[in-house]
Formats: sequence, structure tokens, C-alpha cells
Amino acid sequence: MTSPASSASGAFATRHIGVSDADRAKMLAEVGYPTLAGLIDAAVPSGIRSTSDLNLPAATESEARAELQELASRNTVAVPMIGLGYHATTTPAVIRRNVLEDPSWYTAYTPYQPEISQGRLEALINFQTMVGDLTGLPTANASLLDEGTAVAEAVTVMRRVAGKSHPRVLVDRDTLPQTLDVLRTRAAAVGIEVGEIDVAKPLPEGDFFGVVLSYPGCSGAVRDLREVTAAARARGALVTVTADLLALTLLVPPGEYGADIVVGSSQRFGVPLFYGGPHAGYIAVRAGLERHLPGRLVGMSVDDAGRPAYRLALQTREQHIRRDKATSNICTAQVLLAVAASMYAVYHGPDGLTEIARRTHRHATLIAAGLRASGITVVHREFFDTLLVRVPGRAEEVVAAAHDKGLRLRLVDGDHVGISCSEGTTENHVRLVLDAFGWAGDDLDGLAAGAPAALPPGLRRTSPFLTHPVFHQHRSETAMLRYLRKLSDRDFALDRGMIPLGSCTMKLNATTEMEPVSWPGFADLHPFAPLTDAAGYLALVEQLETWLAEVTGYAKVSIHPNAGSQGELAGLLAIRAYHRSNGQPGRDVCLIPASAHGTNAASAVMAGMRVVVVASRPDGTVDFDDLEAKCAKHSDDLAAIMVTYPSTHGVYEESITQLCELVHEDGGQVYVDGANLNALLGIAKPGEFGGDVSHLNLHKTFCIPHGGGGPGVGPVAVAEHLAPYLPTHPLHPDTGRRDGIGAVSAAPFGSAGILPIPWAYIRMMGAEGLTEATRTAVLSANYVARRLAPHFPVLYAGEAGLVAHECILDVRPITAATGVTVDDIAKRLIDYGFHAPTMSFPVAGTLMVEPTESESLQELDRFCEAMIAIRAEIDLVDKRVWAVEESPLRRAPHTAAAIAGEWTRAYSRERAVFPAGVTSDKYWPPVGRIDQAHGDRNLVCSCPPPESFAS
Amino acid sequence: MTSPASSASGAFATRHIGVSDADRAKMLAEVGYPTLAGLIDAAVPSGIRSTSDLNLPAATESEARAELQELASRNTVAVPMIGLGYHATTTPAVIRRNVLEDPSWYTAYTPYQPEISQGRLEALINFQTMVGDLTGLPTANASLLDEGTAVAEAVTVMRRVAGKSHPRVLVDRDTLPQTLDVLRTRAAAVGIEVGEIDVAKPLPEGDFFGVVLSYPGCSGAVRDLREVTAAARARGALVTVTADLLALTLLVPPGEYGADIVVGSSQRFGVPLFYGGPHAGYIAVRAGLERHLPGRLVGMSVDDAGRPAYRLALQTREQHIRRDKATSNICTAQVLLAVAASMYAVYHGPDGLTEIARRTHRHATLIAAGLRASGITVVHREFFDTLLVRVPGRAEEVVAAAHDKGLRLRLVDGDHVGISCSEGTTENHVRLVLDAFGWAGDDLDGLAAGAPAALPPGLRRTSPFLTHPVFHQHRSETAMLRYLRKLSDRDFALDRGMIPLGSCTMKLNATTEMEPVSWPGFADLHPFAPLTDAAGYLALVEQLETWLAEVTGYAKVSIHPNAGSQGELAGLLAIRAYHRSNGQPGRDVCLIPASAHGTNAASAVMAGMRVVVVASRPDGTVDFDDLEAKCAKHSDDLAAIMVTYPSTHGVYEESITQLCELVHEDGGQVYVDGANLNALLGIAKPGEFGGDVSHLNLHKTFCIPHGGGGPGVGPVAVAEHLAPYLPTHPLHPDTGRRDGIGAVSAAPFGSAGILPIPWAYIRMMGAEGLTEATRTAVLSANYVARRLAPHFPVLYAGEAGLVAHECILDVRPITAATGVTVDDIAKRLIDYGFHAPTMSFPVAGTLMVEPTESESLQELDRFCEAMIAIRAEIDLVDKRVWAVEESPLRRAPHTAAAIAGEWTRAYSRERAVFPAGVTSDKYWPPVGRIDQAHGDRNLVCSCPPPESFAS
Repeated sequence: MTSPASSASGAFATRHIGVSDADRAKMLAEVGYPTLAGLIDAAVPSGIRSTSDLNLPAATESEARAELQELASRNTVAVPMIGLGYHATTTPAVIRRNVLEDPSWYTAYTPYQPEISQGRLEALINFQTMVGDLTGLPTANASLLDEGTAVAEAVTVMRRVAGKSHPRVLVDRDTLPQTLDVLRTRAAAVGIEVGEIDVAKPLPEGDFFGVVLSYPGCSGAVRDLREVTAAARARGALVTVTADLLALTLLVPPGEYGADIVVGSSQRFGVPLFYGGPHAGYIAVRAGLERHLPGRLVGMSVDDAGRPAYRLALQTREQHIRRDKATSNICTAQVLLAVAASMYAVYHGPDGLTEIARRTHRHATLIAAGLRASGITVVHREFFDTLLVRVPGRAEEVVAAAHDKGLRLRLVDGDHVGISCSEGTTENHVRLVLDAFGWAGDDLDGLAAGAPAALPPGLRRTSPFLTHPVFHQHRSETAMLRYLRKLSDRDFALDRGMIPLGSCTMKLNATTEMEPVSWPGFADLHPFAPLTDAAGYLALVEQLETWLAEVTGYAKVSIHPNAGSQGELAGLLAIRAYHRSNGQPGRDVCLIPASAHGTNAASAVMAGMRVVVVASRPDGTVDFDDLEAKCAKHSDDLAAIMVTYPSTHGVYEESITQLCELVHEDGGQVYVDGANLNALLGIAKPGEFGGDVSHLNLHKTFCIPHGGGGPGVGPVAVAEHLAPYLPTHPLHPDTGRRDGIGAVSAAPFGSAGILPIPWAYIRMMGAEGLTEATRTAVLSANYVARRLAPHFPVLYAGEAGLVAHECILDVRPITAATGVTVDDIAKRLIDYGFHAPTMSFPVAGTLMVEPTESESLQELDRFCEAMIAIRAEIDLVDKRVWAVEESPLRRAPHTAAAIAGEWTRAYSRERAVFPAGVTSDKYWPPVGRIDQAHGDRNLVCSCPPPESFAS
Repeated sequence: MTSPASSASGAFATRHIGVSDADRAKMLAEVGYPTLAGLIDAAVPSGIRSTSDLNLPAATESEARAELQELASRNTVAVPMIGLGYHATTTPAVIRRNVLEDPSWYTAYTPYQPEISQGRLEALINFQTMVGDLTGLPTANASLLDEGTAVAEAVTVMRRVAGKSHPRVLVDRDTLPQTLDVLRTRAAAVGIEVGEIDVAKPLPEGDFFGVVLSYPGCSGAVRDLREVTAAARARGALVTVTADLLALTLLVPPGEYGADIVVGSSQRFGVPLFYGGPHAGYIAVRAGLERHLPGRLVGMSVDDAGRPAYRLALQTREQHIRRDKATSNICTAQVLLAVAASMYAVYHGPDGLTEIARRTHRHATLIAAGLRASGITVVHREFFDTLLVRVPGRAEEVVAAAHDKGLRLRLVDGDHVGISCSEGTTENHVRLVLDAFGWAGDDLDGLAAGAPAALPPGLRRTSPFLTHPVFHQHRSETAMLRYLRKLSDRDFALDRGMIPLGSCTMKLNATTEMEPVSWPGFADLHPFAPLTDAAGYLALVEQLETWLAEVTGYAKVSIHPNAGSQGELAGLLAIRAYHRSNGQPGRDVCLIPASAHGTNAASAVMAGMRVVVVASRPDGTVDFDDLEAKCAKHSDDLAAIMVTYPSTHGVYEESITQLCELVHEDGGQVYVDGANLNALLGIAKPGEFGGDVSHLNLHKTFCIPHGGGGPGVGPVAVAEHLAPYLPTHPLHPDTGRRDGIGAVSAAPFGSAGILPIPWAYIRMMGAEGLTEATRTAVLSANYVARRLAPHFPVLYAGEAGLVAHECILDVRPITAATGVTVDDIAKRLIDYGFHAPTMSFPVAGTLMVEPTESESLQELDRFCEAMIAIRAEIDLVDKRVWAVEESPLRRAPHTAAAIAGEWTRAYSRERAVFPAGVTSDKYWPPVGRIDQAHGDRNLVCSCPPPESFAS
């Protein structure tokens, strides 16, 4: 598989793995092991090693492509008029090709390093501006996972802000069923009571902290929510409205009638249906709630030259999640989809969006007029795009007739049919819908004359929106193309060079994995299409879940959770449900090692657990004395322990099996965080060495690209005894399990649209390729550790002095001696043409490097040489050649503008921008060092006026 | 159509045309006309105006996409084992997405400005190195149109070099039929006699200047050509070998046994079949013939800092074609396809290519063994990938049986079947082929054991190839992706900004036009597949030809010619055939105005015509006195006049109708060069105002991207009386015309694979959109002319003082006064972030600017302001503030390396690189001004050793 010749025979592994045979030998020599097998034997404790090879044959790229084509062809793409929050939309081709299919956008990482992320940060601030304008609220975030979880997040915010003792929220009964289900799952876990209300009636007796309203309702009805909003606020509650962004171009936005929070989905802004996801959910809040926003928020600040610059605002809320005080475990956004949706608004502008909304509405009114002319009852007088139609006893027949014509309508019940119009609706569709109901007429023009607009007159929007120039300047495709290129050119992504992020596994996102995502057979399916339309998807999901179970050693996997955080939550909820079903509902203590990722604790809190921290020893491993003490103390109420393996310190701890046994003895379950699975595939299986449940990060180990900060996919994998407690979904066609924990994501199959990526990865790598990738990842990490150790101490290692797939470089002594910080090194790496490693996680003052198997020795060496050169620069600070404040480290990164202007620095221009030698292929950061504190002090989270950029 | 609201309803014209309603009004005000209609009325002579609107309804982008999907679905993609020079191949997905589908590659222009083209120039020099290494010859060019025309070009070179009086070339009778046909077409036109030979027999008596051999032959036979080559050379003739590049990884290359020239196609190096094209043909020559190479040649030179830099070598041979002394009219390459093919070699390396060749060969030997075991005769003992099988009386039956199994074999005649294996052949295909022949066995492994390699032992290649590091460093997809990104980042293409090239019409290449090119239904069809497989293509071609006839006013169009030069040749050959059929074979004089593009004269020579130049008047128009005199003089032998309309001076000449009448009176035909059709669509039709024939440039007016210097498509359009003389093709399924001129391109439908682009453009623009585009192009050109006239005199204008769609800026007085040249201005524009206009064509010392309708007013203004600022810089030279040699004009373009280093110039660094103000979105040229002469003096046309780049 790894001989050079086999690359031509189509073995994908030789394309995915960046290290050639010859280079592997050099690296092994440096690390001091004669063979790769020997290195792995020394690095990985024998006690956890898998006893059998994976059972996964490999396909070539051509074969995998052909198999995916066959799967796609088994899906039936019909005209989706089902609605329920998912609508046909036309992705502008220029956005499809130059965002969704463009590596410079999709291989980018989360914009934690803002100096090299100005392009996507601008796109995201456009998104925030778009959401804020449309909802009528001042501050929106950079997206959430989907509409269902956005409502759940909003409810949490309302609960915290309202400060009421009675944990009750009231929900409009005309709410999307999947939203209700996600909310119920989340509410039940933390003891929130959910009551349903009819917004036409007075609010019920008793206290409540919040109200959730739908605008329009699930039925399509557009109700005047002003009265109920005022009533709720008068009773000291907060109000969240789930709103349709397209409808808001025509309707008075909730922010103008007192809503505190508005949430929803931006899918219909040009993002394919994807059989349910990924899409970008949104959330906007009124003034005063900004600092309660979950997820990511892009804000303005200034760089070292005083230029405006974008960055993530209030970032400490997120990356360093509040652990046991957490109110949200969201640590990702849906950046790529938010970018696409925002670009849709940029391309259409307010006029274009309004025109699309009017056309959509007109088609709905045409259908309503045709039905009424045929004597059929359309239930609501006032609607935007969706009709509820009463056909007593005939609903199935009508839906079937429409099905035969290639349309999919919503079967509400035996007497009611739902019809949703969209940007994709044509007059021909209108005619076919009417035909399905038995319309006798044939004069659409006549209908049009008699079809009045059906929006409530008092709710017609009058306020402007999208007035910022960015929504007016890019209307031709040429202008749009150049805007997209300009933004992506500002960013550094995997298509330019290595992104050595510890714990984030930035590996190759192969084109053969990515291409199927755009195929209509995968992209254009409605999540609630009949099962018979989705035969290809169902087969793909089943295979993928089986393969993921095979590689992790678990009995069953659910790909439903659409982010790692949701997978974690699902896993913990399964543990709780298991204890409950065993008659031990009191088991609610979750042990979490001090070194754990903040999300772990947050997820435990979301799952209604009490977090108890287990101490670490100085070498970074779990303190077994403390663990034993905590287990003993909580033997009656111990629910679980959450551990990451290899540990967040990048080490294969010998004691993992002992840890699992200890926790099991006291009745706890072992949750193995799958973040570091890239160090395990083919070598060890968490389900075999003691784990009861794991979530996986398909965007880390399984090649879904990071998309500039999302989407992720976080399947949950469980042992046999937990299988009954996997997520369920009210609209999942074959959900029969009664014990399931409910939905944690809005769509039945989560982010189904990107599952072809991990499917293709596993299919093309096969057992041997996956194992070789793991081994190479470990080799590369140890190679980097070995080369850099003389210059930066490697903080942790296993017993053989080896790291796993990543290593932590200790910068604290350097900082103490010289004042040079991890930030300085990270920013200086930009001048050398690199993305920074992970900073100060899991240990403050350190850098964590994960090279992955996809990088070549050449690139690893380039990185090591850059780090060594930086160390030499630090030495010059140490020797007082430069004051740290005046050093190229502190002044990094250096812009072209800086070196073109006056220069009074203590080092040369050439050293500033070409520290590794002059090259014509340099990445130029568009801004200098950004002032983080300034941005948080002066929170600006929508597009700044163009004048602010005037130089 | 042009109201802002309609953009949302999907009117593509508002996306294609860059000028908004509001901006149009501003531009009209500047130009001094109240309405666009008024401007057009003033600019365009009423005598040529079309009397009726075009009959072309417009579709939205979604509708056009759906129609194309339907057309693609009507093509049947089978397993192509037909061979005949076209083979299944796997396009590496990373190359498909990041070259063929990437605007930064496909929207680039021909690399005439080498400083901003270093990326694709490197890719092309890789191509040249690849071809040179594989053929065993020192110098290859940057590609030709296809194998058929490459042979024709080689014959012309041989004729010139051999210097023999007898115009006879001998051609191996085992040559591809389409190659023979193209050669016969071309040879007949210039009086070359073509004789066929059997290479196993002695060469015939009589003189001949060259021999063309096939390696392997069309039949698949691999013959030892060493003897015949030596014999031909002994008789003073030159030898050309058409060779299969993949076979050359295993076979002794012709360059090692004395071939003077080797030609062929690089299609099977990862370029889709595309139903015949576009693909990159190749040509390589022995030492001493470099300066006879047709087409483009990339060479090395140095920049102003002494760095190695790529550029087009011997460029004067080409852009400034030798007119009436021409021996080739080739003025384009197939750059995008050559890049793809070269990257395939970079990705696979010599080992990978050899492995693919071995596998291909092994499959062929397996089939041969299976057939022989079944008692079936395989005609040749020695073959590479193709078998000729004798099945007396059964050939049709066998081909039909294979057809039913999804395979396409070649029906040679009633007794013979051809079978070609390729990279795409699998063991399953082998089995199906054998089944089609009635194979009784089922043990492929057994066959494999008894299937010896069938390459002639004495012809096994032993020499190394692709030894340059570039073919060894990019084997992982990550490395490949970054290499592609690095190269494209060096280049300036339409995705970054305006490319205001006069006569080249660099307009939007819309994504909806481009996407279908990649669809398997269009990409994966073999050009000689049965007609029944190509129903979608046939419908598309017929519609497109009809639409092109509609917009040009001609009776019939043929899309067969795969470049403008070939369309020109076809048109002139049609004229000659017409005269001949009228009993006037002596009509062979072609009048060509002095201002014509060099290609015109070259094409006339290729068509066997005598060129007579007609003088221009000082205002740039045709000198009618001279025209009348020439017509009178040649009234007996006048064949045609070739004119460009609007003229190459960018003016609607009033006298065109009169000119046509004059020529017609003297029995000549009028050839209207379609290069400037972007100024006519919807306004005037050459077929109506006097033209008898035109060629169109689908890569200019009809949105096929320039691809960094190709492919183009050059349909020929003719009036009714010339329709019988359109091209024919021996393998075109429905070619029945007896009078046709034969093939001018290798494939029946030319570059069929990119015809969806113009199809989509016309379909989405419709009559109104096309007309509006023309009007806007004229408005934009006049706007630029008006704004720049105070700073640079506009050389020509029509009677109303208006230009057509482009304008010529006269730099000669500036040069005379200050020494600042058009080159200086062109290179300085790079610092301002622009591609230069066309330099010194049609008038030396001028710049020709064609803004096109796709540019926004904002971009036009940015360009005008850059030109005005440059004019101000020139004034500083004029005022002796700077010596011209020390001015930022002469020192342009400025690199980042220059400003990072020591600076002793007379102007500031900031002026050097940020002349229009500091921006973070600057394009940085990778090299400074390139020394053109140095490169021609020191011709190096293959990859230089890496050390030459060491700084």
C-alpha cells in the first residue's frame, strides 16, 4: 500500500498520507526507532491495543466515486413542498463553486487567529448584520447549529436572564415538531417544564420565565404576535420568536414588537436542503443580552496600526467555556453555511430578497385561490408561503396524487395537507398542486387576478434592511466572484500550508470526499421526504454507522448529533437514561479531569449532571488517589467519568484501563471523548478498552473540513447496554425506540449532506490505510517533538518518552525569562507562513502541535525550522539585542503596508516579512496584531460603515 | 430586464452585465447621450443595422441548468474501448476541482504578460518537459490543438526544413483516420501530395520531403520504426512520429531512434474525453528545429533582479505572425488542458505513469490471451493497449454484444473489431469483452499466467524520464493542492480584476455556463461513440448552430473547427471550393487590409491563397481607392477579402456595405472576421450586411473562458451558397456531404465538451440580453475613451466621434516626448492591480482597451484612475523629476522582495507598490520586469534545475 508504485494504482491512502516511504525512514531515524511498528509498540500501551484488524476493505478513488454515484442515484429528488422549516432554494452557482466547493473557504479553521481570518470574519459579520437587520434586533451571532437547538439555546438564555424561580417556558403550539422535540430533550435534562399555548388565547395562570412563539407558525398561519408578546413581557417573562428570514423581508420583524430574542434557520438563503443539514441556525438578541449570546460572535477591533479589523468578540465565553457554570456547550458555528447564506443576501440585496419573498408569497396565494375556487378549505386567511388545507378523509389521496406528479406535500393528518412554496416554486408547480387536489380550472392568470396578498395588513414591514453598501455592490457575477476571491485571499487555510492545531486534527479534506456533497442526489433532498425517496441516504447512513462502530469497538452509532457538543450531550443523556432505567435516577455526578476540554463540563451540566473535578498530577495524568477518593465518595451517585484518550496532553496514558475499571466498580459509566481518535484508529478501540460511550468528531478524524469554523458532525457511539438510549426523532421515519432520549438535532439524520465525506474516507482508506494514517500521525508528532525539544521543552510524554499524535511545547520558561508569550510566537509564525498551533490549551502558556498524517516531511521540516528560527529570535530578546516590545515577535505579524511605509524598527524590513528567506509565494496578513481588549470594550458586531476603513 | 428587481427573478443578463441602471445613467452622461439607444444610433451606421430582433427567448439560470441536465441525461456514458486516439482516463479529483473548475486557472488570459503569469508558465514548462522527456526530444511546445492538426503542422515544418522541390509526404497507412483526413485537407490546400506507405515495406521511389509514422499504429500494432526512419533520413527526408504518450513510458521513444518530430495528444493524461475535445495536442522537435516550432513555446529568462522567470519564447513568431510568409496560422494553445495533463504527470510521477501503462498493457494482454484461448485471431503479436481482432463475418455481432454489456468497441469492418484498453479498464471490463466474443472460460487468473507482455523486446524503454524534482514532490493530495494554489496565486486572472484586452473580449465566464462541462454526461463521452449514445450532444450542437446562425445572419454554422484559426481556414477553404465548383479554380487572391490581424494572412496562405494587402488611410479605415484598384486588378482571380468588423481599430466603419458590394462585383467573396462580434450581437448581422462567411470566436463573444491561453472554439458560419462546403469528418456519423472541405479538426464536433458554455450563455441571455450586452460594451468603451482622452489621445473614432466596443490609446507622442513606452505603462498597471491592455496591436506604440459589458462602473473607474495616475507619473518624467530609466514606470512591476530590501530609488517604496493607496488586497507580481531578449538569446524550454532558483 505504501510503495511508491501503488499510488498510481489508485490506493487513496498514499494520497491522503503525506509522508513518503523514503521520508518515513528519515523520520524514524530522527525519532530513534528502526520501524514504524516498533515506534507504535513503544508509544501505545499494550493493554489497550486492539486484538484484531479492522474489517474494512479499501476501494480506489474511482471505485468509491462510482459507489457514491450509485447511492446518489438511489435518492429521488422531487419538488419539495413539505415546508417544516426546510425549503427549496437556488444556490447561486458562483457561491456554490467559489464558497461551498472552494478549498480556500472549506479547509479554513475556526477564526481564532483573526489576523489570518479577516475574509471569513467579514463574511460572518455580513451574516450577523443580515440577521440583525431582518429580525429587527441589534446583535446577532455568527450562527448556531440549527433552528431546533437555537430555540433550546434561547430558552436557556431566557431562563438565566429572567431570574425566575419557576422553571417553566411556554411554547406556541404552532411550532415545528422537531423544534419542540429538541426543546423537550434539552428542557427535561435540566428540569425545565415546557407548556404549550395557543397564542390566540390569554396566557395561562402560573409563573413562567419565557415564551417561544413562531412567526409564521408551523401551519403557515401568520398571527399577530404583538399582544401576546406584550402580555408575556408584562408578566416579567422574556419572549423568543422563531422566525422565517425570507418572510421577514415582508413582515414587521419581531424586534420591532418587543421580542427579546429571535431565532431560526438561514437555510433558505441559498443553502441546499442536504437532507436536513448542515445549515446555519441563527440567533439575535435585544440590547442588553449581547453578553448572554451562546456560540460565536464576530466583532470589530483595531490592529496595531489603528486599522479596523474583525475578530471573535467575547471569546473567552466560548473556547474557555464556563465549565460547571456553563449554560451552553456550543463550541462551534456553521461558518461555511453562514458564509453561503450571507453571500446569498449580498448577491441578491434587499430588493432581490424582497422580490423572491413576493414571488414565493404570490405562488402560495395562487394555490389558495385555486383551492378556494374549487370549494376546498384553506384553513388560514393569513399566511406567507405555507398553506394548511382541509380535505376531510382525502389527505393521503391528495398527497399521493401530488407524489405521482413529482411533488412532495406534507401529510399533516388524515384530513389536512400542508403545502409550502419557496424560491423554487414555479407556475407549473402551482398547476400540479392544484391538479393533485382535483382542480377543475386551467386559468392561472384568472386565478392570479383574484388572488389577493394574504399578509396581515397591520404586519407589513416598513423598515429598511440591508442598507449597508456590501449588500448593494456585488450584484453582477463578476463583482461577486471577485469579492469572494478577495475575502478568501485574506485567509490562511489548509490549501496554503500546515495548520498544526492540537486536538483539532486539520488533515486533508480530499476532493473525492468533497465532490459528492454537491451532487443533486445528495444536496437536494428534503429531510422529511418519504423514506422511499432516500434509499441511497439510508444505505449510506447504515454503512457509515456500521463502519464507525467497527473502528471504535462500540455496538451502535447514531450520526444524528450535528456537532461534537451535541454528540457529547446525547452520550451523557444516554447514560442518565440508562441509570434511570436501572432504578438509579440519583446517579448524576460526572467526574471530569482537570485537564479536560471545557466542553465536557458544559455538556455534563446541560445533561443535568453535577460536575466533580478530578485532579491531575504534575505529569498531566489523572491523579489516581483523587480519582479513587472521588469514586468512593460518590459511589451512590456516580453517573460517569468523562475522559479524553489519548489525553488532552497528547499522551497515551498507561492507566486508562485501570481508570475504566475503577469507575465501573463504583457504578459509573465511562465516557471517552473522541476528540483524539486520530491517535487510535486501527490501533485501539475505546469500546474495547473500557469505554461505554464516545462521541466522534467526523470533522477531525474523518475528514469533514472545518469550514472556517463549522460544520461539524458528532456521532454518538455506545456499548450494547446503552443502545436503547440513543437519540430519536419525531420525524425520523423508522424511529420506533421508546427509550430514546429524543432529538438533539433538528433533522432526523443531522447533517446528512456531508456524510458522504467520512463515508468516502473510510471506504477509500480501508483498514490498512486507516491504521497507517494513525501510525504516521504518531510518527509525525514524535518527529516534531524530537526536533523541537532542544528549543522548546515538550511538556508531557508517555513512559517511553513518546507522545501520541500531538505534543505540547512549554513556552512558560521562555515567557518568564524574556517576556515573549505564546501569542508572540503564534503571530510570528504568520510571518513565516504558518497558522499557529493551539494556544494555551490544555495548559496556559503552552503551544500544542498536531501535525497529522497528511503533512509531508518537507512541510514538517519547514515548520520545525520556523520554530527554531523563532527560538533564535527569542534568544536575541533574551540577550537584550531587542527589547521584547520592539522585537519582531511582539510586532508580528507584519503587513505589506508596514514595510512599504516609514521604518524605524530595530530589525530590518526583510527580517520582518521574509524571516525564512525571500519568496514570491508569501502569504500576506491583511492586518497587523489585533487589539483583543479594545474589541470587547467597544462591542460592534455588525458591518461597520465603509468610512471606518478609509486610510 | 435591467431593473434591479428583476435580478432576483433570475434574469441572468443582470448578472452577466456589470453595469447597473444607476451607473448606466452616469456613464451616458459622461459620454453625452441621454439614452443608450441614442448612443447606439449614433455609433452604428444605420446601413448595417439589423432590421429585426433576434428570435431567442431567455431562460433563467435555473431553467438553463435544468435543460442542460436533461440534455446531459440523454447522452449515454458507456465504457469506451474504441481507441482511435481517445482513451478513458481518471482525472484526479484534486486537478478537476482546482484546475479545470477553478476560475483562477480558467479565467486567465494568454500569458503575454509574463510577470503576472508565472504560475501557468511554470505549469506549461512542466508540460514541455514532460513531452520532451517522454518523446526523447529536447524541445516541446506548450501544446497544439489536437493530434490531427499537430501532424499537419509537423508536415509543414518538414516541408520547410527539408527544402525539397517535390511536395510529397509519405504517411504510414496505419494512421488514425481523422489524422489522415485533417492532413489531406491541409495538404490539398497548399499543394502537398500525400502518399500512403506500409512501413514493413521499402520506401517508394520518387522524392518526398517527409514521412509520418504511427507508434503504435491505429491498429494497435507496435512496429519497429527504426529501419524506416533511418531509410527516410538517408533520403534527405524528415521523419515525424505520432506517438502515444502513455506507451512511451514503456517503449523506446522516437527521439532515440532518429525522429525529427514527435506529435500526438496528451488527452489520456487525465483529461476527460469531452466527446472529442478540448484536449492538448503536443509537438516536440529535435535540436535545430526549435525555431520552426509552431504555436507557443515557454522559455526561461531572468527578471530585473536576475531571478529566473518564465516567459513565452520566440514570441514574435506568433502574436505577430509572419503574415503572408506564414507557415502556420496557429495562434492559440490548449493551455488549460496542457496544465491538467502536466499536473497529471506531476501527481503520478514517472513511477505512477509507468504503473498505469503496465496495467493498461496487462489488460490488453489478458484480452488477447483470452481470445487466443478461444481460437480467435488477434492480428498483431506486438501491441501496447489496442488489439485488432479478426472475427470473419462476426464483427457487427461482437460489437453489438459488447454494446449490450455497456462497452463500446471499434467496428473496423465486417471482419474486424478493435479493442482499446486504458487507465479506466478493469478486470470486469476484460471479462465482459471476452464474453462479447463468446469466451467460454471464466478463469482470468489462469489467463494472466499465460499472457506474456506483448511489447517488442528490442523496443523496451531503458532511458529515464520525468527526473526533475517537480515530478516527485507533489504525490500527496495535500502537496498537490498547495502546488496548484501556489501557482495560481502567482497569476492575475479575471477573478481578481479587469483584463481590458482589445480584441480579446475578456468577459464573465459564468459558473452556470461552466458547471456542465464537468458533468459525466458531457465529460465522459468518446468522440466516436455511436450516435445513439450522443442524443443530448447532437441536440445541443444543432441548437447551438441554429442560434449562432440566427445571431450572425448566416444560413449555416459548423462548430467543427476547434480554434478561431481553424474556423478561418475552414471559411477560406469553403470559398476556394465554391469558386472551384463554379469553374473558377484560379480565383486565389485574398485581399487583406493592412490593419488586419496577422492570423488572417496566415490563414489565407494555409488555404493556398495569394495575399494582397489593401492600404489603410490615416484614420485607420480601408483605403477605398486602393481597394478599387486591387479589385480591378484582380477581377479575374479575386477569391475574397478578409475584413474585421468593427475594424481592428475598434470603429464601426460606415463603408462596410460599400466594401462588400465592391468585392462582390468583382467576383470575390467577403470574409468577415468574427473577432469583434461582441460589438454586433443583436445590433447587426455580418450575414445581412454583406458577409459570405465568418468565423466566430466562442471564447471571445460567447463566454468560453480563455483558459490561460486556450482552448478556443472557432465555428465557421456561411451564407447559403457556401453551405455545401462546410467541413466534413470521416467519422462524423451523419456526414454525407460530398463537397465538404474535409476535416480541419481531429474530432467530428471539435471541442464538443465546452459547447455547453456558449449554449448556456445564449440560452440565458436571450435576444434582449445579448443586445443589451452589446450596447453596454459599446457604452463602456466610449466611457473609457471619453475619460481617458484628455490624458491619452484616442486614435480612431467613427463619424460621430464614437468608438465601438474598444478604443486605441495612442502612446507614441508620449514615447517620443518622454521615452515612456507602452511596455512601461503595461507593467506599471500591474502595480495598480490590472492586467495590461493589448499592446501595439493593431498599431505599434498604442494600447487597445476593451472593457466589455461585464465590468462594473466601479472597476472601469478604478482602471481610468490608474491610467490617469500613470499619466501623471509620465508627466513627472517629462518634467525631469525622474529620469525615465529610474522612474517607477520603467522599474515596474515592483515585487515585495524589492521593497523589503535596500532601497535607493528616486521614489518611495509606497509609491512603488501602493500607487493607488495602501490596500490589504494587493496582487503581488512574483517577479519584476522580465528580460525578453535574454530569454530568446538563451533558449531554455524545459524545467530548469531547482538550484537556478536559489536566492
